[in-house]
Amino acid sequence: MEHRLKKQWLNINGADRMVVYDYENDSLADVLRRIGLTGTKIGCGIGVCGACSVVYNGEVVRSCTKKMKKVEDFDQIVTIEGIGSAMHLHPLQKAFLKYGGLQCGICIPGFIVSSYGLLAENPSPTREEVRMWFHDHKNYCRCTGYKQIVDAVMAAAAVMRGDADESTLEFDVEKENAGRYYNSRMPRPSGLGKVTGTLDYGEDASLKMPPGLLHAAIVQPRVTRHANILAIHTEEAEKMPGVVKVITGDTVRNELGGSNMIDQYSPSSAVKAPSREILCTKKIKRYGDVIALVVADTREHAREAAKKVTMEYEQLPELTAKAAALHPDAPQVQTGYPNAYVERGTIRGEDPEDIFAEAPYKIEGRFHVQHQPHLSIEGDILLAYEDEDGNLAIQCKSQSIYGNHALLGKTIGLPDEKIRVLQHGAVGASFGWSCDYTDQAMVAMCARAVDAPVSLVMSWEEHSHYAGKRTAATINAEMSCDAEGHINGLRYDIAGDHGSYVEFSDNMNYNRVGTPYYIPNIRGVFHMYSSNNNHCTAWRGFGMPQVNTFTEQMMDMLAEKMGMDPFDFRYKNIMRGEQTSVNGAIYYNAHMMEKIMDAAKPYYEELKATVKGLDTDTVKHGVGISLATFFPTMGTWDKASASVEIRKDGCFYVHNTYHEMGQGGDICNMITMLETFKEYNIPPERIHIDINDSKNSPDSGISAQSRSFVMNCGAINEAAKLLIDAMKKEDGTLRTYEEMVAEGIDTFYEATYQIKDPVTTKFAMDGTCCQGSQDPTPGFAFNVAHVAVDTTTGETKVLGYRSWADCGVIGNYLGAEGQAYGGIVQNIGYALTEDYLEDKKYGTIVGCGLTGAANVPDDFEVHFLEDYPRPGTPFGSNGLSEIFFAGQNYAILGGIYNATGVRIYEQPALASKVKEGLAHLAKGEEVPMPAPYYHGFEFDEKMEELQEKHEAYEAAMREKMAAAAKVEENGDAALKEYS
Amino acid sequence: MEHRLKKQWLNINGADRMVVYDYENDSLADVLRRIGLTGTKIGCGIGVCGACSVVYNGEVVRSCTKKMKKVEDFDQIVTIEGIGSAMHLHPLQKAFLKYGGLQCGICIPGFIVSSYGLLAENPSPTREEVRMWFHDHKNYCRCTGYKQIVDAVMAAAAVMRGDADESTLEFDVEKENAGRYYNSRMPRPSGLGKVTGTLDYGEDASLKMPPGLLHAAIVQPRVTRHANILAIHTEEAEKMPGVVKVITGDTVRNELGGSNMIDQYSPSSAVKAPSREILCTKKIKRYGDVIALVVADTREHAREAAKKVTMEYEQLPELTAKAAALHPDAPQVQTGYPNAYVERGTIRGEDPEDIFAEAPYKIEGRFHVQHQPHLSIEGDILLAYEDEDGNLAIQCKSQSIYGNHALLGKTIGLPDEKIRVLQHGAVGASFGWSCDYTDQAMVAMCARAVDAPVSLVMSWEEHSHYAGKRTAATINAEMSCDAEGHINGLRYDIAGDHGSYVEFSDNMNYNRVGTPYYIPNIRGVFHMYSSNNNHCTAWRGFGMPQVNTFTEQMMDMLAEKMGMDPFDFRYKNIMRGEQTSVNGAIYYNAHMMEKIMDAAKPYYEELKATVKGLDTDTVKHGVGISLATFFPTMGTWDKASASVEIRKDGCFYVHNTYHEMGQGGDICNMITMLETFKEYNIPPERIHIDINDSKNSPDSGISAQSRSFVMNCGAINEAAKLLIDAMKKEDGTLRTYEEMVAEGIDTFYEATYQIKDPVTTKFAMDGTCCQGSQDPTPGFAFNVAHVAVDTTTGETKVLGYRSWADCGVIGNYLGAEGQAYGGIVQNIGYALTEDYLEDKKYGTIVGCGLTGAANVPDDFEVHFLEDYPRPGTPFGSNGLSEIFFAGQNYAILGGIYNATGVRIYEQPALASKVKEGLAHLAKGEEVPMPAPYYHGFEFDEKMEELQEKHEAYEAAMREKMAAAAKVEENGDAALKEYS
Repeated sequence: MEHRLKKQWLNINGADRMVVYDYENDSLADVLRRIGLTGTKIGCGIGVCGACSVVYNGEVVRSCTKKMKKVEDFDQIVTIEGIGSAMHLHPLQKAFLKYGGLQCGICIPGFIVSSYGLLAENPSPTREEVRMWFHDHKNYCRCTGYKQIVDAVMAAAAVMRGDADESTLEFDVEKENAGRYYNSRMPRPSGLGKVTGTLDYGEDASLKMPPGLLHAAIVQPRVTRHANILAIHTEEAEKMPGVVKVITGDTVRNELGGSNMIDQYSPSSAVKAPSREILCTKKIKRYGDVIALVVADTREHAREAAKKVTMEYEQLPELTAKAAALHPDAPQVQTGYPNAYVERGTIRGEDPEDIFAEAPYKIEGRFHVQHQPHLSIEGDILLAYEDEDGNLAIQCKSQSIYGNHALLGKTIGLPDEKIRVLQHGAVGASFGWSCDYTDQAMVAMCARAVDAPVSLVMSWEEHSHYAGKRTAATINAEMSCDAEGHINGLRYDIAGDHGSYVEFSDNMNYNRVGTPYYIPNIRGVFHMYSSNNNHCTAWRGFGMPQVNTFTEQMMDMLAEKMGMDPFDFRYKNIMRGEQTSVNGAIYYNAHMMEKIMDAAKPYYEELKATVKGLDTDTVKHGVGISLATFFPTMGTWDKASASVEIRKDGCFYVHNTYHEMGQGGDICNMITMLETFKEYNIPPERIHIDINDSKNSPDSGISAQSRSFVMNCGAINEAAKLLIDAMKKEDGTLRTYEEMVAEGIDTFYEATYQIKDPVTTKFAMDGTCCQGSQDPTPGFAFNVAHVAVDTTTGETKVLGYRSWADCGVIGNYLGAEGQAYGGIVQNIGYALTEDYLEDKKYGTIVGCGLTGAANVPDDFEVHFLEDYPRPGTPFGSNGLSEIFFAGQNYAILGGIYNATGVRIYEQPALASKVKEGLAHLAKGEEVPMPAPYYHGFEFDEKMEELQEKHEAYEAAMREKMAAAAKVEENGDAALKEYS
Repeated sequence: MEHRLKKQWLNINGADRMVVYDYENDSLADVLRRIGLTGTKIGCGIGVCGACSVVYNGEVVRSCTKKMKKVEDFDQIVTIEGIGSAMHLHPLQKAFLKYGGLQCGICIPGFIVSSYGLLAENPSPTREEVRMWFHDHKNYCRCTGYKQIVDAVMAAAAVMRGDADESTLEFDVEKENAGRYYNSRMPRPSGLGKVTGTLDYGEDASLKMPPGLLHAAIVQPRVTRHANILAIHTEEAEKMPGVVKVITGDTVRNELGGSNMIDQYSPSSAVKAPSREILCTKKIKRYGDVIALVVADTREHAREAAKKVTMEYEQLPELTAKAAALHPDAPQVQTGYPNAYVERGTIRGEDPEDIFAEAPYKIEGRFHVQHQPHLSIEGDILLAYEDEDGNLAIQCKSQSIYGNHALLGKTIGLPDEKIRVLQHGAVGASFGWSCDYTDQAMVAMCARAVDAPVSLVMSWEEHSHYAGKRTAATINAEMSCDAEGHINGLRYDIAGDHGSYVEFSDNMNYNRVGTPYYIPNIRGVFHMYSSNNNHCTAWRGFGMPQVNTFTEQMMDMLAEKMGMDPFDFRYKNIMRGEQTSVNGAIYYNAHMMEKIMDAAKPYYEELKATVKGLDTDTVKHGVGISLATFFPTMGTWDKASASVEIRKDGCFYVHNTYHEMGQGGDICNMITMLETFKEYNIPPERIHIDINDSKNSPDSGISAQSRSFVMNCGAINEAAKLLIDAMKKEDGTLRTYEEMVAEGIDTFYEATYQIKDPVTTKFAMDGTCCQGSQDPTPGFAFNVAHVAVDTTTGETKVLGYRSWADCGVIGNYLGAEGQAYGGIVQNIGYALTEDYLEDKKYGTIVGCGLTGAANVPDDFEVHFLEDYPRPGTPFGSNGLSEIFFAGQNYAILGGIYNATGVRIYEQPALASKVKEGLAHLAKGEEVPMPAPYYHGFEFDEKMEELQEKHEAYEAAMREKMAAAAKVEENGDAALKEYS
């Protein structure tokens, strides 16, 4: 037979059980999961992420690489299911809930198991011991920032030692927040399923599908980064055991009637038509391109057969080096348009050229930020099946169900109304990559081609090379200030390397260099270009991390140039009063920048005063700062719908597309309902959240741009108010479901929410010269980092990180803190280690440089200043995820400079790079700044072109102003006409 | 697609989970089990057994028939896994362990869930309320007798109410038995996995196999009971979706080189060669015969395709009525030998014919006992796969691994050494049917034919019609006594209807009529015959229930005839002193009969005195008694091997074939090890039991005939003593594993145990005239039943049942009580309701009349008199399972007569039959005795034949006696030669 199986007795979670497994191939995780213990999660699948941690004969091990061949009879295994369950929570599980030690949750069972192992050995660990235990046992979390996990372990340990009562681990809304769930530390509803491991992620769902599921594997040759495809051979694969079908782009076009093209393009760029093949038949443009799909009876059969698909190809020059694709001799990556295909200019005030000549202080900077990978612990896993209505359901990690839904039909050759997109029961994070729908298209192609349910599970490596990354960018910039330190001029040109495909490339925030400072005179230009690097996509921050890195670096350099403290220099230049932003926008909450900086100052001053005293011969300490800005919501055209109903069980059902990727779709639905129903004392148990399913969820838009909290909660609130109105009796109490039915009153309400802000409405951001407002209430965070650099290795440790933020009223502290700490730790990775190149090495989280618990500070604080409730929202809250990925990285780079004098021009600040810088300094040389990046044009010529466009824009603006005046006179009706 | 799937959110065990399921077809059980919650067990699969009970929105429901179409969003389900786990046991789970409320355990999660639901509604139930709750919620148990389950619920309820401390639910060996595990109430090791639902039964194991498993279904036409097969058509089935192969007897012969014949026959009968086809190609002999196997990718596909296999046949007369096959005109069922194919005579003393003429008291009796079905809650489930050594492993419910192993090779066409037989991790009882190996042969044929692992799961209905039953029998008998009441003559002829196949038919205990009374003069004959009823096989008691029913009925009738109390009549006639049994054997423990009867007498007298006072107009009370006897072990030729080793983990590993069917293979291994190692204080945690696997388990023989406790414990004890000898240092302490290895001492010991009893050795039971000894230490039980008959319905309730037993020293009380109470409740079913006929109705436990909790007495006691340790065994214990299925039923029949005057000549005493009897009495008629059964011969002629055989036997005996004398002189060497 194909595999030999072994029967063995094991002691699992305290009871002896007999298992039968594939003797040669199975891992301990395979066996545990197959017998139903799917709380042991699969992340990387290669033993480097810790999601699959179990206690094995008393030791914490990663079960995905523990081969069953090494497991002996009656070996003892403890999994998350043994530690506790929803009806019998262990103190550790309670603590993870209570302290918000979870977001997407895929790593959390592993963390709890690992902590359980730690506390068995060491009942009183220090925070550092907890972190280093996780480091030693390879427990990685991409969401939370680790801090809350350490908090939870410390609190649980105290309870387990008997030093604290177990009730301290339980949330008591009465005691903690006088009965109000909003603005409290209520644990998230999905948390119970996450700390117990019972919530099913994609891989779990795939394991639990009804019989008849087929399995798809991608054929990803990974042999070239740029080539013309001459032939694809599928014959050998078709003969492999269990193979049902091999699907190529031709299959999609000829048999399914699909386009096989990603149905997206941007008329405002040079891309005038769909240009990406999903299953490549003509050209390979990056390392991770896919040429075929194999569907078989088992995953193993599909993967084995996928190896037999071969490709003949003609190699082309691989454009992967920085800006290489902008060289005049570079071959054109795409068909029909040039490598540089997006251009945006920013023109404001005078041309700084003249100002620079007279400015007392001026700096030049040339910087680079890398293709940061998302590094969600969970890879890409999809299911496609026929649903109860006969539609094709695509169950996946989408964070844009309707956005994806709208594109799928043409691609796969099925009418839109026959397609349903929904999220898995739990999603192991994404941070942006799952805005793409090409994986959804692939699984749908498979299901259509074989007329059966199909599971498509990419290995983490395949996923890493398949999914989009953060756009890399290079900048050449100059900035000056006057004698008092007021910035008076900024010139820059940025080239964004968006990689092999163009989607999500034209609306990034590259036009915001200089934010949130007042800079009256700007000439800037931004180009996006194609290369043979992986394609780029949404990633937390969506352009802001790049431009804020550049801005903050220039702020430090210019402050240094004039000899001013970088804090004071920033404080002097933040927008105030009537000042408008680099994009000409007013911020309602600009004054909050002073407040957060005032709040941060004492710590900053103290740190500055003490940090140098910590230096040793080999470890140098430094302080870095940054001011982060992000613009939640997409402006006035942004809208969201939600529905709320009461059913015969007396419970309230909420539906919308607040995609829950770990960032809080669940808790935000919950607290909005609770707050809206506040006076009726509806308990959380009576609220059911069934979201992110195009079958029953109204379209609330994409979950990105930090928009969801404002937009979805607005919509839920509107719908819930309609329901309350319908339920309310004359005496002020609410009707029951039965009463409503008896009286013929509707029990279901749907509503749409839209921000109607007068400023944004009038001055929506212009696409040509980047003037106007998108969102007049950005979020701000002021960040102070304490770093220590080991001068012998060049390695940087972040010993302290504090952040003071203005994000409006906090709906849920645990959720907000999760976004904050998690974002900051992602920034540590962005600053120091994380990268993606088109190479085998970047197929693992380790190869990509994911930040672990060892490099997370114990001095780690986020302070929310809630003085300024965001106007126009139901409860004054703002979205905040990306406020914590908007320049936080720079405080670390600044800290390295402060510690060592080594300026990091090209991120990440790998130890080798820091060491190289130190070597220059040791020789008395300066750390060299990169030569100016060649972006394919002459700056002054480009400015002349842009100036003409700008003038056209200004003419158009005058018309718009007239229309806006009409709106003021005539109200909403005109607004609709206008928008 | 073939099935439409639905996504839904449910609240399972307190946490919200998203599931995807087959919308049209899935039950709640399907979904729960598929997501890993296999503590929800599958028994009947049709909602009548309760193994799959869950709490659904607060109500206890059977999840196997709860269609998912009826389940609504966020419905709340609590399963056994939610109630508690091995590391967090719920008081109910502790109580079920502590009170022995489990044996095979398949129904136990359902009982615990059901009890959880009960106590939520009623925290202080009475015992009757508990029983009736189980009745109302259809919770059936076939092993335990319910009493201990009710004990457990009562004890847990007290703890849950706070009336008792939770520690009362935990076994404390120090406190309860001064640290000695043997002879204590230690809970069984497998109990933890059973009360938590984590132990995998066959259906669970099948669900958890590695990918690549194929599924087999049987083709069981069920259209005729007797027919010549003209043709079998498989073409349509082969075209069905997912079908890999259709296998018939021809496939086995032509492609696999197997015989397709059951490789068993009995030269001492008329059956001189294998005569049963496993996949019938020539003839259908019973309702449940199988003509083909279908292997497909899913179970559903296999079953759908199986429906498409058709058979052309020529109908033959169906011989299913009592003794119909013995009619001279009856067609011959088998080829090559007549319908009556086994004959055994019993000749002892004078021919009673002459005594009868002068006897003051004589009765005639004609009785019938039915084809009792085993009614294990779990049906038949098998797996076959290639094991780690390349052998074909058959994982199944075998209770005779080596017995089966020896037969499989020829049948399936594979060398013996390539075959491995092992038990599932847990086995949902059998009581004898799984001595057969034809199901094992079928799954092995499938795996060989498709060269892949195969699961064969019969539906409970298929299993019911496929598996063997208890042999039915009819008797014509006469018995007399003298004026003092001493029995002086017995004549009988019995015909056993063994059904369609002949295996296990020739060594049944039908030669024991009259046991355990002293009856000097006997002429009896017993025939076994073929019919078109289901084939018969081993069933707890193996003939003793039948003959003891006859004997005890005659005892009552004769006592009545002479006007003596039936107790006194029995007391007078039990064997005493030098008296030998009906088979001429001495019993070492015959004196224990007086002891148990003395112990029973006060209760009997009191009951007799009070019971009539309980009568109402419509309910009549009565008292019945019976004396039960059984012969554990198979005599001197019986032997068993076991191995014991220590491994590097410092734990002791025990291997043998103490097949664990729920009867206690686990606990008996455990306590034997603990007792043997007693002085070294080895804790239970250091003893691992990995048994019933022909790969690593020495052959300890079949687990039947109540032999295992004596034989296996003997072997384990011997092996353990060898190990202790090897481990023992000069100072009396034990070496560690490391020390043994360092000193080059073997760490593994195997030993064989054999009873060397002088009586049995000399007078082994003769096969011709049934004189001689098989086992000189039978077990005895004296039983008193209090029954109440509703005269309006004829329905009988057992209101009290007490038993006093001599079974040697009790190794483990919970195990012993489980066998006792369980056996007695099976006797209630045997007496009152249980039957099997070749008909659709008997495809369910309800149709077969399984006894539920409603008809189990609350006055239910078993008393073990341990005064007489069984000689020659390690710790004085005896096997005892069948001591509680050896006439216990008759006490109930006697009670009915005592209550109503209705004598039940033909079991079971269905309400309709009792009512019919009452109608006769009401008309002043006698309840008619059946006419003499025609068994195919004239009694006197037959006796003449037998007399000749007897004389030949006596001559042979004289030679034997000479040989035996030689043994006495020369010891063991001669014994070997002799035996």
